[in-house]
Amino acid sequence: MSRVDVARRTGLSAAAVTKAARPFIEAGYLEELASEGRTAPGAGRPANPLAIRPDREYFVGVKITGDDLIGVVTDLRADVRAGAHHALASHDVGHVVQALADLVGELLTGTLRERAYCLGIAVSGDVDRASGVVRYSPFLGWRDVPLAELLEEATGLTVTLENDVKALAVAEQWFGEGVGASSFALVTVGTGIGSALVVNGGLVRGAHGVAGEIGHVPVADGGPSCHCGGQGCVEAIASTEAILTRARQVTGEPGLSMDDAVTRARGGDEPLREVFAGAGHAIGLGLAALVNLFGPERVVVSGEGVATYDLFEDQIRRTFAVQAFGSAARCGLVIRPLPFEEWARGAAAVAVQSLFASDSV
Amino acid sequence: MSRVDVARRTGLSAAAVTKAARPFIEAGYLEELASEGRTAPGAGRPANPLAIRPDREYFVGVKITGDDLIGVVTDLRADVRAGAHHALASHDVGHVVQALADLVGELLTGTLRERAYCLGIAVSGDVDRASGVVRYSPFLGWRDVPLAELLEEATGLTVTLENDVKALAVAEQWFGEGVGASSFALVTVGTGIGSALVVNGGLVRGAHGVAGEIGHVPVADGGPSCHCGGQGCVEAIASTEAILTRARQVTGEPGLSMDDAVTRARGGDEPLREVFAGAGHAIGLGLAALVNLFGPERVVVSGEGVATYDLFEDQIRRTFAVQAFGSAARCGLVIRPLPFEEWARGAAAVAVQSLFASDSV
Repeated sequence: MSRVDVARRTGLSAAAVTKAARPFIEAGYLEELASEGRTAPGAGRPANPLAIRPDREYFVGVKITGDDLIGVVTDLRADVRAGAHHALASHDVGHVVQALADLVGELLTGTLRERAYCLGIAVSGDVDRASGVVRYSPFLGWRDVPLAELLEEATGLTVTLENDVKALAVAEQWFGEGVGASSFALVTVGTGIGSALVVNGGLVRGAHGVAGEIGHVPVADGGPSCHCGGQGCVEAIASTEAILTRARQVTGEPGLSMDDAVTRARGGDEPLREVFAGAGHAIGLGLAALVNLFGPERVVVSGEGVATYDLFEDQIRRTFAVQAFGSAARCGLVIRPLPFEEWARGAAAVAVQSLFASDSV
Repeated sequence: MSRVDVARRTGLSAAAVTKAARPFIEAGYLEELASEGRTAPGAGRPANPLAIRPDREYFVGVKITGDDLIGVVTDLRADVRAGAHHALASHDVGHVVQALADLVGELLTGTLRERAYCLGIAVSGDVDRASGVVRYSPFLGWRDVPLAELLEEATGLTVTLENDVKALAVAEQWFGEGVGASSFALVTVGTGIGSALVVNGGLVRGAHGVAGEIGHVPVADGGPSCHCGGQGCVEAIASTEAILTRARQVTGEPGLSMDDAVTRARGGDEPLREVFAGAGHAIGLGLAALVNLFGPERVVVSGEGVATYDLFEDQIRRTFAVQAFGSAARCGLVIRPLPFEEWARGAAAVAVQSLFASDSV
């Protein structure tokens, strides 16, 4: 990209762009490409385009689930260069820290090791990025674990901790569907239903630590009870567990598995198809609430639950179209499955972000 | 406020604050108060506190409703110095412009006239502040009216046009409950139900022009049909018209007036009390959706419908407490009536904002 384009996009003067770019060029993060031979009239010298040098530095990203660790190494553009999995034998903090250090050691070989300084960690639950503390993780049974500090000691890397859905949103904002959008939402559907919102160019964190809880938007007054204490929440209708519970009710088979429910619904079992459509309807209502309130440019719906999205995508879209208000319906709606590795890439994207925008917390 | 305090709040250096303040002092918007006699150690000279001179300039604000014009003159702090009403005989654009010019002439007498250069106009509907065009106003039956331009010709003042709920939010953000809050929401309840959201320090405008439509958050799956084409929207249950329709149903009195419904509900009529409580419940569900998604620091619920808030405040608070997720429930919830003059003050606040933060559009 030329300095003129950078100046236009950032609102800085060309001189300020040149000044700002210099230390990045000296440190090897940016390079000047050969001149394109076109000189702006009156400009003192040819404006050589600037390019990112993706291999200047590598970043490790790890997603911690209740069962395993999923790790990747990416370059500066968050393109994945290596990946690895570790099963977790226990949720003991010391054990998890050791397993994370082992995984990082396994991922970082050769030149990757020489140029990797930052580790991003994504974990679901209440995570305080600024202090690097996992305040509460239901899946791990952790409270107030200073994970960033423990991992810096164990790995020697600079560690950034982030809530997993927010980490995915950072990956979308910096490297994915969110590039160029001043506002967008990422919604994840699966065991839990959550979202991360970017508004006015920044992640919405919530003044009291809670935001993006689309799973707990009440859409069905008098509907099923939710574990949060409310009623009719999106999650109480459309989480994996809620779908399975309902599927067992309508078939009268208390031992029905999710896999069987999906197979039979795909095979045309009407009552089971309606269970999935009902979940899609609840998600569509939640999306309409979100879009009517903050009008994002785009919404991405993803998550492990979307592996079966053929069973509810249609209903999500139909309900959304009915309930979205006026031109809010023009919001782009992308529904796509989410490979588990993407969560780890999100963690790496957070590490990239921390390096260049340390005040983004 | 001392320059040191300004520097701390803005993150600028003390030197930058001094430099930035100088033109405002020269133009008479700020003044230096007498030194408090305390000099910071090592400081070159006493840091005289800075104060706004509220009477340096006056601002006119007018709210246009379907029936009348409500106008005020405020000072730089948005304190009201004068007020006036005009009934509107027609919605003809030329007639409204003339009536507005007459109202402005009536409001600006003596020193008010000498120091008033800016006029803020608040109107409900789809308003494009940047171009000064009323894109669509259902109450006035207007489409694509270049009102700012017409009014600048008619009054000689610099005109800023804003959606009425957003104007109220600006008044709250700059001069009311929102001061010091990085995020808050203003919800208005009445003929329509709307809201304006401030997140990450800026008003949420919606990428496609729609945001803050809390009236069209679906909270009751399968509930009453809404004029927007959806079902179970907050507005379909809790707008003034929806309450009256339901009150007529439960009493079997098709001629029942709102005033009578309110009087009888206050007198203890249980079925009518339940109609108001049901509206409060729907508003509480909508607030929970908003707060679980955004986590604002504070929410103000206001509007002409809140004149009867004794009939539904309790239910709003109870439903909100049940459905707010985790610490989102700590969001401060202020419920208060809204004098009609406040809408006009919001318009004046927008004019103040335009003068000092012209890029806030």
